[in-house]
Amino acid sequence: MKDDTGINSEVELIARMATVFAGSDSNVMTGIGDDAAVIRPPNPGGDYLLVTSDMLLEEVHFSRRWAEPVQIGRKAAACNLSDIAAMGGKARWMFVSLALPANVSTRWTLSLCEGIARECRSHKVTVAGGDTCKGDKIVISITLLGSVGPRNLCLRSQAQVGDLLVVTGPLGGSAAGLAMLRSGLEPDPYLAAKHLTPGCRLDIAGRIAPLANAMIDISDGLASETGHICRQSGVGALIRAAAIPFEKPVVEAAGMLGCDHLQWALAGGEDFELLFTIPPQKFSLLASTVAGLVCIGEIVSEPGVRLVHPDGRRTALEGGYDHFATGE
Amino acid sequence: MKDDTGINSEVELIARMATVFAGSDSNVMTGIGDDAAVIRPPNPGGDYLLVTSDMLLEEVHFSRRWAEPVQIGRKAAACNLSDIAAMGGKARWMFVSLALPANVSTRWTLSLCEGIARECRSHKVTVAGGDTCKGDKIVISITLLGSVGPRNLCLRSQAQVGDLLVVTGPLGGSAAGLAMLRSGLEPDPYLAAKHLTPGCRLDIAGRIAPLANAMIDISDGLASETGHICRQSGVGALIRAAAIPFEKPVVEAAGMLGCDHLQWALAGGEDFELLFTIPPQKFSLLASTVAGLVCIGEIVSEPGVRLVHPDGRRTALEGGYDHFATGE
Repeated sequence: MKDDTGINSEVELIARMATVFAGSDSNVMTGIGDDAAVIRPPNPGGDYLLVTSDMLLEEVHFSRRWAEPVQIGRKAAACNLSDIAAMGGKARWMFVSLALPANVSTRWTLSLCEGIARECRSHKVTVAGGDTCKGDKIVISITLLGSVGPRNLCLRSQAQVGDLLVVTGPLGGSAAGLAMLRSGLEPDPYLAAKHLTPGCRLDIAGRIAPLANAMIDISDGLASETGHICRQSGVGALIRAAAIPFEKPVVEAAGMLGCDHLQWALAGGEDFELLFTIPPQKFSLLASTVAGLVCIGEIVSEPGVRLVHPDGRRTALEGGYDHFATGE
Repeated sequence: MKDDTGINSEVELIARMATVFAGSDSNVMTGIGDDAAVIRPPNPGGDYLLVTSDMLLEEVHFSRRWAEPVQIGRKAAACNLSDIAAMGGKARWMFVSLALPANVSTRWTLSLCEGIARECRSHKVTVAGGDTCKGDKIVISITLLGSVGPRNLCLRSQAQVGDLLVVTGPLGGSAAGLAMLRSGLEPDPYLAAKHLTPGCRLDIAGRIAPLANAMIDISDGLASETGHICRQSGVGALIRAAAIPFEKPVVEAAGMLGCDHLQWALAGGEDFELLFTIPPQKFSLLASTVAGLVCIGEIVSEPGVRLVHPDGRRTALEGGYDHFATGE
């Protein structure tokens, strides 16, 4: 990756790519840099068009060693559905491009498609196209279109100082499940499901969106996602470590493996819960109708994301999962 | 690929995938099986939304051995733009997902993006999002959105018996250029450009579309594309071999390499000219305003695609480039 361009991270590369791609189309309200692109409606007062893309690679994002093709398909669909949820939108049409090696049977491919189709059906999404080609490794590249009314549109960039920072459910489950599988251990069914067939929060996103100021889905870890909201809103955040919600199997798995479950939440990724900021009085209103919401911190004016430990110490959080800086 | 599913070709696999994905969304007018999906407008009388996806893999669809990153980017954009041209549409917003190996420099990646951006700018298309991740081989997965008014929408499935079969320009150039490069020979500049930086026919598609009955772009060879139109329209076609247009460098390259330039046109692919069917009287009208159109045959009621040789013999044409059956 490194050369004389001075670019050292995925965030920097994407920022530079956005400069190269910079266009002047006033219909594109938000392009590169949110969970989905937002395109203005052709008819005044109509719904915005949302577009999100995710590319999944074998042995980077999924492994045939422990995931069945139906599970891989469901998860591939879910991570795109989650991006539309993060915008407050309704998911509509999915486009699936696949690269398939010669050692993948047609039966395996059709099971993968069945997994994608199943997840789509449960959210009334239609798979309307894509591409297939032969490659050395499996690639699943999905683009999902959605729509959102002006009142529900929720960007990353609108967090306000004084907002509460809220998550829609417990974190760290996917990372815990993956850590167990990588260690050759059988994960608890809860952890296996969290890693292999995560859901998305389209079930509640539409109720959160009209009240929230900023929203993002947690695909790369809490630290990284909070950082995105803060950078794009020109604010900072405090996250209270003791307030981050965990299910018991996550804490138990961390103990068993000698890992830190807090790190799984902060940097583990793929929980696909939503993270949003909301004024305190609106949070009270929302929490009375949506179950499972947990306030984990607040938006402050001082830039950066800081973790507040139970003893009051504060440490700066950098990053989360960087697709380029970590791993091979 | 082969197993007990009885599926032996890309066409069969895509047909089966379409069954797995079958949805009931009446907004999807045409899904899997045309150059782009067609989605009905939310406002009556508005434009249809077009969506096309193409995935390009290193050493399958392009090679760093002979293509510069700017060229690879331009071609990746062009093959998607060509799909929107084939629907009679206007290209609007592009989404670019990239997998990048560690041995690809950031400079190379930015040049690739510059190539994509350049091709987009010349067709007033904005790159509005995508995804990046690290992989073993370069993957370029592009989804392009476009729009088309009801009068211009041109499907593969509307060819009528008695229509003329017309191409928008000479064929075989891309295959000739590739054959030269693969043989280690320097291709003529015309052939190099045809293979490395093909254009698309958005320049004339909008004038053809209101008059044509069916249209497709030539990405997998004339035989295969004519087959798609015939199968989806429930008709057959005769292609007159002597009428297929070739530029001189293509014929010369075939002579030099001991290849058949006719085969390059029929099965070579990536010419990105348009192939359309049109009633004879409308063709006369169109040919007086659009230069370079060549009538190469006609639509008949008898199913199948037949090549009519200069001596009057007829041979059945099967296929074109099948991404699964060939190579590897």
